[in-house]
Formats: sequence, C-alpha cells, structure tokens
Amino acid sequence: MSGSEKFLALTGGVGGAKLALGLRELLGPEQLAFLVNTGDDFEHLGLHVSPDLDTLMYALSGLSNPDTGWGRVDESWQFIDTLRGLGGDTWFNLGDRDLAVHVLRSARLRAGQPLSAVTRELNTALGTRHSIWPMSDDPSPTIVHTTGGPLAFQHYFVRERCTPTVTGFEFAGAAAARPLPEVLAWLADPALTGIIVCPSNPFVSIDPILAVPGLREALRASAAPVVAVSPIVAGLAIKGPTAKMMAELAVPSTAAAVAAHYGDLLDGFVLDVQDSGLLDGFRGGELVAIAAPTVMLTLPDKVRLATIVCEFARELRASRRAAPA
Amino acid sequence: MSGSEKFLALTGGVGGAKLALGLRELLGPEQLAFLVNTGDDFEHLGLHVSPDLDTLMYALSGLSNPDTGWGRVDESWQFIDTLRGLGGDTWFNLGDRDLAVHVLRSARLRAGQPLSAVTRELNTALGTRHSIWPMSDDPSPTIVHTTGGPLAFQHYFVRERCTPTVTGFEFAGAAAARPLPEVLAWLADPALTGIIVCPSNPFVSIDPILAVPGLREALRASAAPVVAVSPIVAGLAIKGPTAKMMAELAVPSTAAAVAAHYGDLLDGFVLDVQDSGLLDGFRGGELVAIAAPTVMLTLPDKVRLATIVCEFARELRASRRAAPA
Repeated sequence: MSGSEKFLALTGGVGGAKLALGLRELLGPEQLAFLVNTGDDFEHLGLHVSPDLDTLMYALSGLSNPDTGWGRVDESWQFIDTLRGLGGDTWFNLGDRDLAVHVLRSARLRAGQPLSAVTRELNTALGTRHSIWPMSDDPSPTIVHTTGGPLAFQHYFVRERCTPTVTGFEFAGAAAARPLPEVLAWLADPALTGIIVCPSNPFVSIDPILAVPGLREALRASAAPVVAVSPIVAGLAIKGPTAKMMAELAVPSTAAAVAAHYGDLLDGFVLDVQDSGLLDGFRGGELVAIAAPTVMLTLPDKVRLATIVCEFARELRASRRAAPA
Repeated sequence: MSGSEKFLALTGGVGGAKLALGLRELLGPEQLAFLVNTGDDFEHLGLHVSPDLDTLMYALSGLSNPDTGWGRVDESWQFIDTLRGLGGDTWFNLGDRDLAVHVLRSARLRAGQPLSAVTRELNTALGTRHSIWPMSDDPSPTIVHTTGGPLAFQHYFVRERCTPTVTGFEFAGAAAARPLPEVLAWLADPALTGIIVCPSNPFVSIDPILAVPGLREALRASAAPVVAVSPIVAGLAIKGPTAKMMAELAVPSTAAAVAAHYGDLLDGFVLDVQDSGLLDGFRGGELVAIAAPTVMLTLPDKVRLATIVCEFARELRASRRAAPA
C-alpha cells in the first residue's frame, strides 16, 4: 500500500465505526481521516453529547463497551442511579466514565473552543492519531419528522426507541453550517485515493453530513471515487432503524434502494454477498457495484472488508485516470 | 418545646452542619430553617458547585461521607479518574454520585430556575423538609486576598490547600445580591425565638451572609436574640483554616476575638468549656456569654449543644421581653 495514498471515510454510529476500525488497521494517520456525523449531537442536562464522535473515538481507542454496544468499557452507573433518585432526567443513559468526556467537551465548548479542537484533544488523550473531523463546528441537529410530530434525533432514537413512524428528516441548522477547512483541503488533494461511505444509516448518519453546504459538492468534485458500503443486508439493517425507516418512507428496504438514495454521489457500491443477486440491476449503469462479506463480527471481518473496499476504490481511481473525461 | 417556636440557623461548612444536625433533631420544619453561605459557590468544568449547601444537604439527609469529611457516602471516583486520563482539571475532586447533584443543579440554573428552588428540589428529593435557604439567589463569590494576590475561594481553599497567607476578604458580588423574601419574612416574624450562628468560619462562612445587603440589618432588627457558637476552642479551630486566618490577620485566635469580630450583631455567645476562663472578659459587657461543651463528635454531642444553645436563646428572648427597650 503506497504511503502517498489518502482516504476519507464518512461515518455515523456503530455500523460505520466497525469499518472505520478495519480501515485504521490498514492505513496510517497520514493516509486516513474520518468525517463524522454530528446531527445526533444534543444538549442534555447542560452537557454537549456527541454520540457518533464518541462511538468512533471509543472504537478506535479500544474502549467500546462490548456489553452495551454503546458507550465505554469498564463503565459504572453511580451518577445516573443517583440522578434517578434526585428526580433528574435519566432516559439518556450516561456512564460515570463516559460522563468525563461530556463534561470536558461541554466545558471546552463553553470556553469558546470549536468542536473539532475538543475532538482532537479527546482523541489525542486516548491515543488516536488519525484525524477525526466533525462534519461542522456549527450545530446542525437532525430533526426526525414522525406521524406524531417532529422529534430531536435523540428523542426519537433513545427516548422513543425508534417507535414513532417516520415521515421525513430535516437538517435544521445545515444552511448556516460550514465544513471544516481541513476537510475541504483533504478532499481537494489530487492524491486522494478514495472516499468511503461506511455502512451507516443513509438518512440520519450520512445525509446530515451531505447537507452541510459545500460538502456534497466537494465530495463530487474530488479526484477520488466515492464508494459506499450498504448498511442493508438481505433486506435488514445489521443494526439500528435503517430498514424500519425505509419501510415507513415506502422505499424498498434493499441495498439497491440505498444506492439509489445516494444517487450521483457514488462511483462504487459494495453490497453484501447475500445480496449478490442484486448485482444484475447495476450492470450497464454508471455505478459500479461489487459484492463482499459486509457483516463484521470480528476484527478480521472488519479488516477484510476494509481491504476489499480500499482495493475497489483504487481500481475505480485507476480506471478514472485511464479514461479521460 | 413549644410548637410556635421559630429558629433560624446561619451556617457554612462542616462545623456548622454538625450543630445544624443537632438542631434538626430538636426542631421540626415549621420551627427551624437554615440560612447558608454561598460565597464558596463556583463554576467548575461548567458545573455550578455549592459546597456549603451540599454539606448541609448531605448532613441532614444522612449522606455525608464519613471517610472524606466532605461529599457523599458510598462514593466512587470513576468520573474523576477518567477525566484525569483525558487531561482535564482534577484539583477539585468530584465523586460520581456527588456529580449528579452538580449536573442537575447546573441544568436547572441554566434553565432559569433560582438557586433556592433547585436547593429545595434537591433536599426534598433526599427527604429533608426543613427550609434550606441560600443567602441569595444572586452570585456573591468570596475572594480571598493573599500576599500572593487575590484567589477565588475554592482556589484558596482546595487548590492551594489554604497555604497562601491571607490579608483580607472581599465579597465582590454582594452589593448586587438580594436576600430571599422568605428569609426576611422569617426574620420579621414576631414569634422568632432565636437566631443561631453556627460554629462556622466567621470570615468566609458567616461574613459572606452578613454582606448581603439587608441581611445584617434584618438580623439585628429581629425580635429574636442572635447567639453565636465559637468555632475556636482553646485557640484552635476544630476544623478548617479559621485559626490560621486569624493569626495571619494579626487577630488573637481566641473565642473572645470571634465575639469581637461579630460585634453588635450578637446578643449571646457560646464558648467552649475549655475556654471558661474567658467568661470573665464578658462580665459587665452587653454580650451575654456562656460556656458549653462545643466539641461535637457524636450525634448526642450535637443534640446536647443544640439543646443548650436553644435554651440560651429562649432565656435571652425572655429577658428581652421582661426588660422593655
């Protein structure tokens, strides 16, 4: 693998973090950076919580909690137990160790530091040297429209456990949000090899990133191909409400529908081997699709998929060079 | 003890909370209220910390930490350990359970609730029915002037462990601070039996209360006598830096000097039996002094002193009634 390669990975929560971990095993800090959804961010009990940034941070630093699937390993719950006794809001679970991240982040933000700087500080403290960039330093909270009315994302996702029927999404602050200059510079690098859209929820993990003015355009204008991995396998989401959302939005919950949703953003698409039958639908189109084992249970699973995706991006990149526009 | 009696106790930290606990054993919620120093309050890591309010809250609810002498019982330290690993400020120790109080209070204050309302909410949740009133809902932070320059109180007290040499005190926000209407109403009640100044630090626990405009005047104008218990016993402070401060301020560290410091605020003064020799100095003066066992190690010690102080106040109250002004 060439030292001059550069990749950017777009990611949201737990599903995306799995591929991110595989990519990190293959690519060094000069070769790989992450662009992360912050549409899930919210203010809770006066604390700024950044669920997707933290999921990636804990994954890369080896601190993910294997029992809960979210939060931090070796966690304890004295704080939230006590808060419950005091009559405080406890629908959003906060572990004692996890809380240190939220308190430190909130204090830094209140002191005027941008989210990207606090994110770097936290990840550096935990030993991660790869760049982890929030999609913006400006708030752009995702609103989930439901048949019962609009809900802030975490209210939909955690408090209501994804039960309301979804009718659409809104990225309220996106119009005023600015992408980070570092991200635009990384994307403008003619050496960029590939842009990888991790198997995250297209609606609430990736679309909020694409809604930041200038980002979708910069992704399209990049010298590198954009390759997405389907979060839908055999009609189901590996994790989270993606398939349920698609059903409620009257979209077939298939990998093909995910590809169609991303539209002209993509140059390549990776669907699961269980969905190989769908490959026929891509033949003759502009989008190149391949099948791969996308279900990642172990670290070798993650590294294998990361290897396939990187290689796919390299091939698309090479054919783009070979075929003058 | 008459059901129509009413007492107000002024208190600061741990020393005052001991007598407060004794008083609470004797007097019901209609008969006893607490007026508490908030000059120690400070913003730390974006959280509003109210050390003296919390010391009293934990004492009255039986949750004081017997091991540390501060904070909450059954405490754990996962949060602060993690914060240390992240490079955050850890000079002020915050337990996982204690943190629930600070986070809830901070969230409520940020939402616009006054400190007195949050204090009531917290104490009610912990089972306390006696009124606990902050000296003001407005901030009035104590500044400790030292030979090395001015220090916020907690920086002097905790971060610098009281080592700097004190030259004076400043109650920066006091001029704009307003006493609670409930406190003024309680003080104006003609049925008020006694006002008890607990054995707290005169300079940094009681003076900040007296510095709130109108409070000292309301205490003086009350129908009830003001009785203080000396925090200095045999030239030493039972707890905290009172004696050290007096030495640095070139005041003799004696119970008599404490009485002189309070001046015309007091009608009665309780010094320790070890200092009985000082009683001679009060004879013939306007201030009535008695000796009592003021060292409180056990709950019976606290109740015994509370009984003596209440009885002393009743006698002063009766003699005030007998001798028309």
